[in-house]
Amino acid sequence: MILIHTPSPKEVAAYLPLFRAALPQQTFIALDEMRDPAAVQYVITWGPPPALFAGLPRLEAVFALGAGVDKLLARDDLPPQLPIYRLLDGGMAQQMVEYVRVGVLGYQRHMDIYRRQQAAGVWKMLAPRLPSEVRVGVLGLGEIGRAVAQALAADGYAVSGWSRTPRQVPAVDCLFGDEGLDELLARSDVLACVLPSTPETQGLLNASRLAALPAGAMLINAGRGDLLDELALLYQLDNGHLRCAQLDVFASEPLPADSRLWQHPAVTITPHIAAITLRQQAVTQIAANLERLAAGQEGLGLVLRARGY
Amino acid sequence: MILIHTPSPKEVAAYLPLFRAALPQQTFIALDEMRDPAAVQYVITWGPPPALFAGLPRLEAVFALGAGVDKLLARDDLPPQLPIYRLLDGGMAQQMVEYVRVGVLGYQRHMDIYRRQQAAGVWKMLAPRLPSEVRVGVLGLGEIGRAVAQALAADGYAVSGWSRTPRQVPAVDCLFGDEGLDELLARSDVLACVLPSTPETQGLLNASRLAALPAGAMLINAGRGDLLDELALLYQLDNGHLRCAQLDVFASEPLPADSRLWQHPAVTITPHIAAITLRQQAVTQIAANLERLAAGQEGLGLVLRARGY
Ligand SMILES: NC(=O)c1ccc[n+]([C@@H]2O[C@H](COP(=O)([O-])OP(=O)(O)OC[C@H]3O[C@@H](n4cnc5c(N)ncnc54)[C@H](OP(=O)(O)O)[C@@H]3O)[C@@H](O)[C@H]2O)c1
Ligand SMILES: NC(=O)c1ccc[n+]([C@@H]2O[C@H](COP(=O)([O-])OP(=O)(O)OC[C@H]3O[C@@H](n4cnc5c(N)ncnc54)[C@H](OP(=O)(O)O)[C@@H]3O)[C@@H](O)[C@H]2O)c1
Repeated sequence: MILIHTPSPKEVAAYLPLFRAALPQQTFIALDEMRDPAAVQYVITWGPPPALFAGLPRLEAVFALGAGVDKLLARDDLPPQLPIYRLLDGGMAQQMVEYVRVGVLGYQRHMDIYRRQQAAGVWKMLAPRLPSEVRVGVLGLGEIGRAVAQALAADGYAVSGWSRTPRQVPAVDCLFGDEGLDELLARSDVLACVLPSTPETQGLLNASRLAALPAGAMLINAGRGDLLDELALLYQLDNGHLRCAQLDVFASEPLPADSRLWQHPAVTITPHIAAITLRQQAVTQIAANLERLAAGQEGLGLVLRARGY
Repeated sequence: MILIHTPSPKEVAAYLPLFRAALPQQTFIALDEMRDPAAVQYVITWGPPPALFAGLPRLEAVFALGAGVDKLLARDDLPPQLPIYRLLDGGMAQQMVEYVRVGVLGYQRHMDIYRRQQAAGVWKMLAPRLPSEVRVGVLGLGEIGRAVAQALAADGYAVSGWSRTPRQVPAVDCLFGDEGLDELLARSDVLACVLPSTPETQGLLNASRLAALPAGAMLINAGRGDLLDELALLYQLDNGHLRCAQLDVFASEPLPADSRLWQHPAVTITPHIAAITLRQQAVTQIAANLERLAAGQEGLGLVLRARGY
């Protein structure tokens, strides 16, 4: 028996028939249909309520309906050896490409500056900048970051990428580790972060790293909010070292009403929408993974819990 | 002798050495170096002063340093049979792709709505929209429009295009003539105009055509300002029929300080920068054209004056 749960009953109701159609031989249920917790073998979930897992004595694995599993790993009701599978892509990589591209393209074409000129009634042409003249640094070269870096390179930008272990991405200058980060920061006109939140990455974008970006740089954060020191960002925007920021994730979400980020003219805020799980793609992928497990194969997207992602 | 003239002496000074390097056997001069007007065979120009051509008795052809020749054709000092060559591409097509893409992508990803939500301190996710769910209509399928339509189709949008005569562009649904326009308007979530200004196209985007767009549509105008009825646009934005507009060209430029467009929350204004002539590319193309003429071949980019472009 497979339990599907998200905070939205409407969403669960939308997922159930899709999963049932994909795997008719399996039994999928919503939480309110659960009569026997001991019959639940798998949970497919996003944002599960506290202690959900503690009440499921025969749970064999959890499937996340998203790519970032930081919240899941922070829980205390999941036995450390229990396999957690994250969503690979699920339609998210292409959306993240679009989200980062709209930021980079707007930066390259001075759209943020023209917006400020417009507010002041100023008609003034700026010297055009070619894509090849804009250096983009992509933090994270996983399922999502790789797609972002490759797409921007194809757009003609000068792209560097950064990961924990050495990676290779065609047309992208790949760096890794602490030294690699210093090198990448120094040459990123736009820094686009699509890292997971882990004990190692939390607080990564701190005051000194933001200061290490070239003057006039842009920050895009679509990884996780706790990667970024928001006060340090405001400081660098206020003093003019950084030109603008496009933020999709925040230390606290929804972004608190009293955050100075809301009204900052150089900040674009989106409500954690950079890459939303597309239902049918998630169902297809998780169903395939369930079939792999049933066939005795390894599941894809296994989270390495010691690594934190 | 070839006269180079634009309103900016700095620009002329930048062009002279490039042309001299490209065609060392030719003599290129600036206006203040002209001793004998009768020696001038060609003029390479953008925004020439009134009556410039009247004083050049042996002029054989004019080369425009841009794609739009409406201003040149409206002059009374150019004999009707004198050949005018416009710039083909000159780096402009790729820039126009970027300009239209940043608008379409922003529309698809709701960036304009998120900006308005941000101003109001509202955190609210909107349902994601895939590129294939956004229908883009491109007005004009010439050097620039073709590149725009093809790039957007490659991005995954459902693209239609419109021209005066029947055209074929891979992956683009091509329409033409009056009937074709009605069809295209009715199905364009984003209408992107890259038409030239001609007696036939002036005022094309009038009240009834803007009303014929689907509710919630966006207008991008990067063709010429006189194609659009700005008051009609403001009306459709104010009454909510149209969602937003990105305008690069205006009936009067610079956009007058008292225009309501400046402060409209749904309007993005850029100061005629969508596609700027890139100097080296312009030089390369015009030099090649001069060589064709010298070899007795036809020049490329000949403007058909009866047609108006
Ligand atoms: N805003 C949104 O809507 C949204 C949507 C989806 C995902 N996300 C975020 O995007 C993140 C990435 O997703 P993904 O699918 O690409 O994950 P992934 O496949 O696990 O890739 C993670 C990448 O981050 C790198 N990384 C991890 N820790 C690092 C460290 N300490 N130093 C340097 N690099 C490190 C990894 O390096 P290695 O390659 O060496 O392992 C890998 O390249 C998610 O975790 C989530 O937080 C946000
Ligand atoms: N904002 C900027 O920075 C900027 C920069 C460069 C250019 N522009 C503008 O962009 C315009 C187009 O440039 P281009 O190089 O693509 O010009 P082009 O190669 O001459 O193409 C013009 C296109 O418009 C179509 N067209 C003309 N009159 C029409 C009519 N009455 N009905 C329907 N279609 C009509 C033509 O149809 P056919 O194919 O049937 O001939 C052709 O497809 C320029 O004239 C200029 O105004 C603006």
